[in-house]
Amino acid sequence: MFGRIDHIGIAVEDLDAALALYEGRFAMAQSYREVVEEQGVEAVLLDLGENHVELLRPLGEETPVGRFLARKGPGIHHVAYQVPDIDAALAALQEAGMRTIDERPRIGIRGSRVAFLHPAATGAVLTELVEPAGAHDEPRR
Amino acid sequence: MFGRIDHIGIAVEDLDAALALYEGRFAMAQSYREVVEEQGVEAVLLDLGENHVELLRPLGEETPVGRFLARKGPGIHHVAYQVPDIDAALAALQEAGMRTIDERPRIGIRGSRVAFLHPAATGAVLTELVEPAGAHDEPRR
Repeated sequence: MFGRIDHIGIAVEDLDAALALYEGRFAMAQSYREVVEEQGVEAVLLDLGENHVELLRPLGEETPVGRFLARKGPGIHHVAYQVPDIDAALAALQEAGMRTIDERPRIGIRGSRVAFLHPAATGAVLTELVEPAGAHDEPRR
Repeated sequence: MFGRIDHIGIAVEDLDAALALYEGRFAMAQSYREVVEEQGVEAVLLDLGENHVELLRPLGEETPVGRFLARKGPGIHHVAYQVPDIDAALAALQEAGMRTIDERPRIGIRGSRVAFLHPAATGAVLTELVEPAGAHDEPRR
């Protein structure tokens, strides 16, 4: 059901300091940067072969990542696994009784389709499913 | 310097419950299981293509993962990146002034060589470097 790790999401307070570490010292290549108002974050993707590190800076305190920072401080926020067909994967997990944050997939960054499982159902690990853009070529309505 | 994500390490209180989730519901294949007395953990590796999920159950409260669980509860404990030459990678980071937990690489599970960077130097993200077994064929003394 699950393919590779798509990315780990890291909550940061200071994006410039984080980029100095990941891009500067660790020499990871930045491939994407976007402000996602709807999710209340500025996100930067760094490439590690087919995997990514996603740095997440909250746009305010009353956002999911802002509340995470206030509660736990900076650190690893979530892990995302690739799935070839997110509709099928999410439906199978829901049918097995798994609690999810997203009832249906929504659009993530770079045209991917994503859905979060609920940490209460995953041992407190915020877990995201990602169907990369172009992975699923059937028409969508 | 860094290759793919080798694994994410997840701290768990109940290994059987975690395996029911990752092996059972998520259908990840278990590839390795080892009690590492020296590090105070029982570790299980699950495969996701070339990436892995590493479940970590502490052998007692006075172990690094036991203290993590007491302080933060279950969840993502660390991220590990593959490097082709851990001696060179660790030396370069130390020369750049980065604080590390391990001054020199040590043996990890499955014959890998590993070293941890200090979370104080990495935005509170416990970060591991992994040179997989066989990745570096020069003689070692």
